[in-house]
Amino acid sequence: MSGKKLDVVFILFLQVVLVVLFALFAVYDEHYDKEAYPMFQDVHVMIFVGFGFLMTFLRRYGYSAVGFNFLLGALIIQWALLCQGFYQLNENNKIKLGIESLFKADIAAATVLISMGAVLGRTSYMQLLVMGVLEIAVFAGNAVLGDRVFQVSDAGGSIFVHAFGAYFGLAVSTVLGFRSPKTEDNSLEEARYTSDLFAMIGTIFLWLYWPSFNAIEAPGDGQQRAVINTYLSLAACCVTTFAISIILSHEHKFDMVHIQNSTLAGGVAVGTSANLMLEPFGAVLVGVAAGAISVAGYEKITPFLRTNFGIRDTCGVHNLHGIPGVLAGLIGAFMAGIASESMYYKTLYEIYPARAEPNVTATAEYTFLKPGLGRTAGEQAGYQVLALAVTLVLAVVSGVITGLILRIVKLGQLSAENFYDDAPSWTLPEPVAPIKKSSAAGCHYDNPSFEPPFTNGASPPDVYS
Amino acid sequence: MSGKKLDVVFILFLQVVLVVLFALFAVYDEHYDKEAYPMFQDVHVMIFVGFGFLMTFLRRYGYSAVGFNFLLGALIIQWALLCQGFYQLNENNKIKLGIESLFKADIAAATVLISMGAVLGRTSYMQLLVMGVLEIAVFAGNAVLGDRVFQVSDAGGSIFVHAFGAYFGLAVSTVLGFRSPKTEDNSLEEARYTSDLFAMIGTIFLWLYWPSFNAIEAPGDGQQRAVINTYLSLAACCVTTFAISIILSHEHKFDMVHIQNSTLAGGVAVGTSANLMLEPFGAVLVGVAAGAISVAGYEKITPFLRTNFGIRDTCGVHNLHGIPGVLAGLIGAFMAGIASESMYYKTLYEIYPARAEPNVTATAEYTFLKPGLGRTAGEQAGYQVLALAVTLVLAVVSGVITGLILRIVKLGQLSAENFYDDAPSWTLPEPVAPIKKSSAAGCHYDNPSFEPPFTNGASPPDVYS
Amino acid sequence: MSGKKLDVVFILFLQVVLVVLFALFAVYDEHYDKEAYPMFQDVHVMIFVGFGFLMTFLRRYGYSAVGFNFLLGALIIQWALLCQGFYQLNENNKIKLGIESLFKADIAAATVLISMGAVLGRTSYMQLLVMGVLEIAVFAGNAVLGDRVFQVSDAGGSIFVHAFGAYFGLAVSTVLGFRSPKTEDNSLEEARYTSDLFAMIGTIFLWLYWPSFNAIEAPGDGQQRAVINTYLSLAACCVTTFAISIILSHEHKFDMVHIQNSTLAGGVAVGTSANLMLEPFGAVLVGVAAGAISVAGYEKITPFLRTNFGIRDTCGVHNLHGIPGVLAGLIGAFMAGIASESMYYKTLYEIYPARAEPNVTATAEYTFLKPGLGRTAGEQAGYQVLALAVTLVLAVVSGVITGLILRIVKLGQLSAENFYDDAPSWTLPEPVAPIKKSSAAGCHYDNPSFEPPFTNGASPPDVYS
Repeated sequence: MSGKKLDVVFILFLQVVLVVLFALFAVYDEHYDKEAYPMFQDVHVMIFVGFGFLMTFLRRYGYSAVGFNFLLGALIIQWALLCQGFYQLNENNKIKLGIESLFKADIAAATVLISMGAVLGRTSYMQLLVMGVLEIAVFAGNAVLGDRVFQVSDAGGSIFVHAFGAYFGLAVSTVLGFRSPKTEDNSLEEARYTSDLFAMIGTIFLWLYWPSFNAIEAPGDGQQRAVINTYLSLAACCVTTFAISIILSHEHKFDMVHIQNSTLAGGVAVGTSANLMLEPFGAVLVGVAAGAISVAGYEKITPFLRTNFGIRDTCGVHNLHGIPGVLAGLIGAFMAGIASESMYYKTLYEIYPARAEPNVTATAEYTFLKPGLGRTAGEQAGYQVLALAVTLVLAVVSGVITGLILRIVKLGQLSAENFYDDAPSWTLPEPVAPIKKSSAAGCHYDNPSFEPPFTNGASPPDVYS
Repeated sequence: MSGKKLDVVFILFLQVVLVVLFALFAVYDEHYDKEAYPMFQDVHVMIFVGFGFLMTFLRRYGYSAVGFNFLLGALIIQWALLCQGFYQLNENNKIKLGIESLFKADIAAATVLISMGAVLGRTSYMQLLVMGVLEIAVFAGNAVLGDRVFQVSDAGGSIFVHAFGAYFGLAVSTVLGFRSPKTEDNSLEEARYTSDLFAMIGTIFLWLYWPSFNAIEAPGDGQQRAVINTYLSLAACCVTTFAISIILSHEHKFDMVHIQNSTLAGGVAVGTSANLMLEPFGAVLVGVAAGAISVAGYEKITPFLRTNFGIRDTCGVHNLHGIPGVLAGLIGAFMAGIASESMYYKTLYEIYPARAEPNVTATAEYTFLKPGLGRTAGEQAGYQVLALAVTLVLAVVSGVITGLILRIVKLGQLSAENFYDDAPSWTLPEPVAPIKKSSAAGCHYDNPSFEPPFTNGASPPDVYS
Repeated sequence: MSGKKLDVVFILFLQVVLVVLFALFAVYDEHYDKEAYPMFQDVHVMIFVGFGFLMTFLRRYGYSAVGFNFLLGALIIQWALLCQGFYQLNENNKIKLGIESLFKADIAAATVLISMGAVLGRTSYMQLLVMGVLEIAVFAGNAVLGDRVFQVSDAGGSIFVHAFGAYFGLAVSTVLGFRSPKTEDNSLEEARYTSDLFAMIGTIFLWLYWPSFNAIEAPGDGQQRAVINTYLSLAACCVTTFAISIILSHEHKFDMVHIQNSTLAGGVAVGTSANLMLEPFGAVLVGVAAGAISVAGYEKITPFLRTNFGIRDTCGVHNLHGIPGVLAGLIGAFMAGIASESMYYKTLYEIYPARAEPNVTATAEYTFLKPGLGRTAGEQAGYQVLALAVTLVLAVVSGVITGLILRIVKLGQLSAENFYDDAPSWTLPEPVAPIKKSSAAGCHYDNPSFEPPFTNGASPPDVYS
């Protein structure tokens, strides 16, 4: 209990710090963006149902998957409200909270939950909480850097959320697993029939509401494009994932790992350019590419990285968020490089404010116009690539540092025999005695009326449980 | 793998064709119906969570149910965007994609997923894809026929979606099953405890969001009536289903098949007239009738059709979509026959444009007014019946043809021993070894502290798994 | 069957009475509050998915939990539409149904489903239906009393819904269980691994959509405050619940009972004052207190009440709805006591109409202004406490009477051996024979490649099923 007591003190201390910070800084925003509320709720479902259930695929880690996702998400949204608010203090040094703050906090939480996917099952909840608190601080800074300094466009957060979260998580995972014994038993790093079905709840809700995720921050009339592009990319990605799964899986059948994850890669890959003039066929192509690359990542890259570099990635976030996030960043740079006023009219300067001339002013028709930096399309493309590169470097560096901190501080470190198991953290229910309708007595099973019959009392392990 | 390779090539070929067609025809609609977005997302959940999980009730077909629903839905929404768009090309021969296109594509997908319910477990994913592609082409034509030629009102799509999908699927099922051996083992065509609970996720989300399904296309102030009528009809249908289930089920207890399906029949039966002046009590009555008829269908009609005509219907779509769809069409005809300007004021001509006089023009107050055909109420009722009849004929004929094509082309046809089983299509997890908290050794079980006790090591099949 | 026949006749009789009442009283409201629709759907999900799945945690009561919730909810929303409407008849003695009616009916249903949680597993569906019908009649009267006579503010219904529902249910539970044998076996009053995961579906959806529940009735610009306060309170409550669960649970690990329930207490505790100037830190503090108190309730108060007073509470509604509801009422009274025009400007009189002077009239800017009672802040606080006290007394008295009626009428009373079991009410699937991938023959299990190995054919009860 002594280690546990420390856990409790630490968690409650974090929560008290949050109370104090809210008391010092947070006030209500008088502006109410009621129209954004339904999309906010869609994103909210993605964070807690989507991510939470997606990670329940492990056979004995369902409580932890949905539970730690819940705990971590609930802490991080509070912390993100503050971290993001510190960069937007008003004239009284206050953070104004409105619907926009809430969905931005949820999106920030996604970053941490993506990282959690890389280390799922090999980290204690304490390690996850510390990781999340540190990660959000860096995440918020990087997002402000991209938004204000580089002035890049990343509507769906594929660079700042997905790529950042994935590579941060992989860095943490690598540092935590460095020189760990190679002989450990990983028989629990598998799914079971029902756990795969629970995971599909997460997958489907993520897939359904992803258009809201990519559209909610898109300015002006780009919001509908963000919805349509994401819808199309995800649809094409889903179809492609099923096809490629047959080719690349061992038994040449559909593999649930791919269906649960790679079907979503289209939402990531289209994210940065979701609100842009990608055209419907472009969105479909992005989805096809994302699905194919993601499945290939699961079958080829993840095993390669694990075998050769000891990089473990429980949920394969590299294939769902990492590679597709980088792809999204590059597509976004390409789209920035071809963006012109003839494609976007004046909204070009709503999407890329730095492209506006320094002497521009708002008009009654174009209220969003404000002085920019006079960037060319090529320069904007360059900044998009720069922001991507800086994000990757920051993610890896801060992830490595976070991993080292977790190794040094030893907060609830798990020994390998407790990996992927709910038992160390959760009170588990008593075993369930099978109940039978008809009597079954003796070592020989008397009522072999079920298919397939088995020869005696031995009840073999069940595939479908 | 060779057959599988052909599968992959075929799926990827379909996806490439879609890319080309999107490139040739699809552009963004500049009009953004943001208000429709929340209802679109409700419908989106119905298609992929609702239908997907509803079909997970089979004990060993959960992956396929939710997975094939996902694959088929993702392909069909793309195809439906195009098929429906071809009938609405703009002056440049382009299809304009907006939120309305997306929810119409989702609704089209519902048609195919209903048909899938009739053949669930006895068709390969390849057969489902081919079926879906063919079905949508006919569906889109029939919808245009009803909308432009017959000019009928079917707000919730009970005629064009539910009845069409059900009878198309039953026709396919009958053709595919024609002269199949009667002795096949159907022990897998059953639920298990957890699969029934997964199915309830689908049921409840369908039931909850059905008002959005019936209201999303309802013009003008009829949208609120569509919400209220559907809400009431479903509530009454749910209560009635529970009651009738006790009477008609074998053990005179609630039967999950009824609860999962018949509770939804009220949404179908009220669909055509959801936006009409049905009055609240009328909506409740429709729900009562639908629930009772649907349960009776499961207990009496489905076994009758199967025994006497060899018509198999895995999910009982005849009882959830077929009969209630026909009932909806007839109620819609009745409501059309009594519709008058005194009931609807000028919105009568928004609901039934053909009833407007040929010389009418829009006014500032009634922007929707346009020249009609001067139909009487009785004539409109007649056209409503005609559209229903034509839909049924088209569904059966095109379903039979589709079934014949599937028999001839032999795309991944399943042998009977692979029916209702995930194993042919999915990589399944390794069997799960039960884990125990306390030790259990010997053939005699040493720790009989669980209820109910059983006498030795034999672990009988478990009802609750 | 004879008892069952009576059940069916009774249910159908109720449904027919509803038809008649709808025919006599219900008409469509011509006003359509389309903006409220998305929040209504959120609440709708809470009632049927949230409450329904939350109660599936019992190992052999999943069908009943989600099914009875469905049946009861569907009946009660119809009945609540009428009961609430009777207090708002228009000049023609008609009830006008609009979106507002629907979400108010859903919220009323929540009251009954909370009470159901107290008696879950020990009551037949018939008893639940009778309980619900009686409860709604009292609930509707009490809500009108609070709204019109006491003129109190309770945006999230913590007093009128949560506290009322909890104490009504506890009263029913106590009367029903009075002098029942203490020796009964309660081994089924436990969870299993999968049932706990199904319950988490309910928890998470309740937690996500709770801001809509607390905000949907909040007038004017208080709606955004209601969203933010609820979001913050729930986040802080979730974090606190996890921490306190470690301290108070037997094994000093997270306990699913707490995670499923106490994480939600913050939504209840902040309900009455959700739309008030609680300030963000105040909302967080309320959440912290609610989580801690709720977990303590599960570990200390519930066992105490059960052991000493025989009060049983299957879902622990006392800790999720009862105590947090009372807390909410007291916080609401405090906030009323400090409310001033300097805090709320003129919206003070929108929140507390009784505080307006008797001679006030609406202005173009403040359309909601109308003559009030000239109450002081202190008086308003007093009325808030009075309404809470009256609610508690009414809940207990009407609950006791309802319990007595259920004891006397003996509608489908369950004997103790049928408690917490689906079998008496549901047709259960045939037991599932485990299917194996590799052969397993003989009493000795030949393929002990699974972890943990076990020594022979005995398949011990599985923790993870």
